[in-house]
Order: sequence, then structure tokens, then C-alpha cells
Amino acid sequence: METNSVSPLPPLDAPLAMMENEKTPPGTPSVTDMPPPPDANLQGFLSQKREDSKQDDFMKELKGAMRHGHKHHSPKILSPHSRRYEEDSENAWNCCSWFEYLLIVILSTILLIGVLVLTLFWVIFYRGGFAWSDSPQLQFNLHPVLMVAGCITFSGFSILLYRLCRCIKHLYVKLTHMLFHACAIPCIVMAFLAVFESHNLVEPPKPHFYSLHTWLGLITMAMFALQFIVGFFSFLVLLCCENRTYSCRSAMVPIHASFGLANFMMAVATCVTGLVETERQLVGETALSTRNSEIEHYIMNSMGVVFVALGIIISVAVRRSNAPATAKVYVTERLEIN
Amino acid sequence: METNSVSPLPPLDAPLAMMENEKTPPGTPSVTDMPPPPDANLQGFLSQKREDSKQDDFMKELKGAMRHGHKHHSPKILSPHSRRYEEDSENAWNCCSWFEYLLIVILSTILLIGVLVLTLFWVIFYRGGFAWSDSPQLQFNLHPVLMVAGCITFSGFSILLYRLCRCIKHLYVKLTHMLFHACAIPCIVMAFLAVFESHNLVEPPKPHFYSLHTWLGLITMAMFALQFIVGFFSFLVLLCCENRTYSCRSAMVPIHASFGLANFMMAVATCVTGLVETERQLVGETALSTRNSEIEHYIMNSMGVVFVALGIIISVAVRRSNAPATAKVYVTERLEIN
Repeated sequence: METNSVSPLPPLDAPLAMMENEKTPPGTPSVTDMPPPPDANLQGFLSQKREDSKQDDFMKELKGAMRHGHKHHSPKILSPHSRRYEEDSENAWNCCSWFEYLLIVILSTILLIGVLVLTLFWVIFYRGGFAWSDSPQLQFNLHPVLMVAGCITFSGFSILLYRLCRCIKHLYVKLTHMLFHACAIPCIVMAFLAVFESHNLVEPPKPHFYSLHTWLGLITMAMFALQFIVGFFSFLVLLCCENRTYSCRSAMVPIHASFGLANFMMAVATCVTGLVETERQLVGETALSTRNSEIEHYIMNSMGVVFVALGIIISVAVRRSNAPATAKVYVTERLEIN
Repeated sequence: METNSVSPLPPLDAPLAMMENEKTPPGTPSVTDMPPPPDANLQGFLSQKREDSKQDDFMKELKGAMRHGHKHHSPKILSPHSRRYEEDSENAWNCCSWFEYLLIVILSTILLIGVLVLTLFWVIFYRGGFAWSDSPQLQFNLHPVLMVAGCITFSGFSILLYRLCRCIKHLYVKLTHMLFHACAIPCIVMAFLAVFESHNLVEPPKPHFYSLHTWLGLITMAMFALQFIVGFFSFLVLLCCENRTYSCRSAMVPIHASFGLANFMMAVATCVTGLVETERQLVGETALSTRNSEIEHYIMNSMGVVFVALGIIISVAVRRSNAPATAKVYVTERLEIN
């Protein structure tokens, strides 16, 4: 079980690593696979062990015995569904944690969908809708909508689903996580092409990769591509030889998670800078002369606030797990390591 | 020890809550205050306990015994400095975690000081330096420098110090944390007054609280004030009646920490939006005609990249603790709760 200590600083990575480690590593019999020793056995076993003078061995056995005894005195954990910790009464959620969990899920969903709807509304009603090469100005409009869809909505849901969905088989969660990110790819590619072409077609042609928004955008896209490729190979392709790659995949989990969250925060920063740059350009053009442009200004400000709120709420949601039981899993694992 | 379970979702808050809980709650004798039972005593004690038929009691004692035995076989933990987990060989850091810790500390320090130096350099060499009411344009220049000093450099160091400095007495860490935040207050107030007055004095007067930057800035300042007042009363004033307020203070720790990190991320977003707004305004004025204005543009872009990097690295640093031993404290605490 040495491989379970994926990080020397467990509190950060524990809940994330736990999801990977929840599948007992190959070759180690699961606690729930073995019947618990009856009380008499446990005590007889301890009594026999007392004869041994080696304290280290004794301590190891004590830990093991304690673990069994502990499982034994909460009989639900021995049911066939014992992996679903919610069924264990000791891990039952209280009202407050349910409220907190629901609040995060509902708020994130509203904000993730809301920011896409707001962007679509802004582009269609205030920026004239969409087009391709025939109108560089309208072609540019594809950029914010597709980037928000790919980098924020799809990626955000992918991250949230991976963290919060633990009631179905872990492989399906992984596949959903991958599929949502895969859906983001065409959006990002199309959005990139749209802005690239519209910069070339406009008169005079605009320079590429000049502003802060484009710098942050390039870094974000590079991080996204790297993260997708590494994630795809580490967590899906390497599953073909599951036993051999267990320790490698375990070690990758906290890195993938931290890097993914950093990537999402970069995406939020990119969106905010892009929004402010566009807004300042529009202010320069129209000078907020009409009532209409003032409303547009408030809509864009609201989009900015929602982006920042999303960056904060997703980073909070990712650190939280839907299973208070991770604490217990953690205890068990650590005791075995020690 | 019921009060130690400050949150139903421990992995997020564990390292933060741990710092508060490290001080053993009043009335509970510390493990290190009691001499460890000798081997014979431990085993005799277990043997006696075997007679008891109540499994729950037995399990409780087993856990306690295990904890003592465990402490006993690592004698360093019994030294007067036993709170310093680094001295426990089991918690010794490996090369990789030291590298990671140093990287975070050095990188954060460079970025926190670097962004302030970069802002000062930009304002002095490209924006004409400082003034008060006699020149609204130069009065405005106080705003970015003081805001970066207060909201980013002082606050960032305060957060970092609180999380990373565990080798001195916890009260001193708290006081330093408070002092750094207290230093941020005059900076923020001066910066706010500078921009407010310069908006009024400029011809024509600029509207207040109109752009996304000002919206985010207002939210950030309100959050900062609330956080400072609540933190000051909860963690310093309430110490006067330490015993009575322990559970209340424990419960406040994760909330204060999450809210503080959210506040820092808001501050970063505010700085980035302010930077982009100013940069777009300057582009509009000078149209990047000269070589000088192009260099200024690159300096401002670099400041933006540093702000975003700081937002990411501080949120990573805060989640990490400098004590791998928190895992062990955690195990001990949880075992007692269960």
C-alpha cells in the first residue's frame, strides 16, 4: 500500500488521490473482501500476539485488528455496497453539509450555464450575431461564445462532474470527464480560427498575440492541450495494463488535478481580460452615448462578475468532496502506511 | 474532542483547522503531557481490557493504547519540542517535498515583491511619478501602486506567512498575519481616496463605480473589511476567554481561510481588470506610435501575467502545509472522534 501515499503533503491531494485509490490496488485484498474476525477471534489473536516481544510487529497487527474491529462494529460497511460510504451511518451527512453541497452544485450550474446564455444574448442582441469569412466583424463574434462554451462551460462541468459524481462506477465518471473536455476541443479550435481569420480579414489587419488577453489565451490553450493528452494517456490508455501502471497513475492524480484547476483559473483570467479589452474598445467607439450602449456595458460587467465568481466557486467545489467518508478512508490508508 | 471536527468535509479544511486545533483544547490532557505506558503496562492494560465484553469500550481503549504505543516507538515525539513534527523521523521531509516547498516560497516571494517593483517602475518611468490634489493625473498614479502594495503584496505575504510559518508560537504567527493585513489598510484607504479625488478633479469629472474594475474593487474592499473585523475579533479578542470560545473559534477557521483566499482571488481579478482598462485607454491615446509606448505595453502585459500567476500560486501554497505531519495529527483526532 506504499503507493497510496501519492504526495508527501496529503491534505491537499487526499480527496483527489482518494478517488483513484478508492479502487483497491491490485494484489491487495480489500477489507470488505474478507469476513471480519469474530470478537473471540480478534481477542484471541491479540492475546497470541502479546507473546511476541517485537513491538513493531505488535503495533502493525494492532492497527490491522483495530481496523477490522472498527469495520465490524459498524455492520453496514460489510454489505456488498460498502464502497458507497453514504450508506454507512457514521458518514451520514448532516443537514448543514447537504445544504452546502447542494448550494455549490446549484450555484455552479446556474453560473456555468448563465454565463454562456449571457454571452449568447450579448452577441446576438448587441453585436449583430454570427457569420464566417464574409464579415470579419461578425466572424469575430463566434470567438467569445465558443471560447466561453469550451473553456468555461464544458470544462467547468467536466471538473465538477469528476469531483461530485461518486455514486456511479469510477470508470464512467472518468469517461464523462474526458467526453466533456473532448467536447470543448472543437469549440476552442473553431473559436481560435474565427479570431485568427477575423484579425487577418479586417482592414487594416490587426496584429496577432499582442494584448494581455492573447498572451493568457495562448498559455491557457497550451496548458489545456497538454492536460488533455497527459490525462487521456495516463488515466484511460494506461488502464490497459492496470496492474503495472497503478503507482504511476496514482502519482499523476494530484498533479493532474492541481494543473487542471490552474488551467481553469487561467481560462477565467483570459475571459475577463478579453471582456474588458472588448468593452474598452466599444466605449471608445460609441462613447456610451446611447441608452442601448449603457445597457450593453452593464451586461458585460455582469459577465465579468460571473466569470470571477465561477473561478472562485469552482476552486472551492473542487477542494470539497461529496463524501465526508474520505476522512475515514484516509485514516485507514494512513494507518497501513505508518 | 467533538469540537475538533470543525467541518463535515475535512480534506478541504483539515490543514487549516489543524493549525487552530494544534493547541490542544482546554481541559484535555495532551498526549505528550502524559508519560507513555511501558510495554508491559500497555499489554497488561490490553489484557485486562479483554475481559470487558463491551466491544465499543474495548475499541476505544484500543485506539487510545495504539496511539500511546505509536508515540512510544518513536521516542523523539516525547521530547519537549514534540509539537515540532519535523523532528519526528516518520514525518521527515524527503528531497522532493523540500524542493516543492522551497519552490513555492521562493517563487511567491519573487512574484509578490516583483509585481510591486514592476508597478513602481511603470508608474515612475512611464506615468510621470506621484502627486496629490495639485495634479489629478499624477494623483491617480498613487492608486495602482498603493493597491498592489496593500491588496497583493501585504495580503499575499500575510496569507503565506500564516500557512508556511509553523516553527514559531502560533500566537505570534497570528499576530504577524494580523499586522501584515493591518499594514494593508492604510495603503488601501489612501489608494481609494487618490482615485476618488482624481476622478472628481479631472476635467470633465469621471463617473464613479462604473466599470467592471470598480465593481470588483468595491466587492474586494468590502470583503477585506469584513474579513479583517471578523478575524480580529474571532481569533485575537476572543482569546481573552479562551476556554469558552474554543469551539466557536475552531468553527470559524475554515470559513475565514476560504473567504480569505476568495478575497485574494478577487483582488487579483480587480488588479487585472484595472490594468487592462488603463492599458486600453493608453493605447487609445497614443495608438502605440512610439517605441516607448510599445515597451510600456509589454511591461503592463507582464504585470498582468504576474498577477494571474500569483493568484494561482498563492491558492496552491495555501492548500499545502509545511507539515506533512498534519496527516498524523488528523489521524489521531479522527480516531478519537470515531
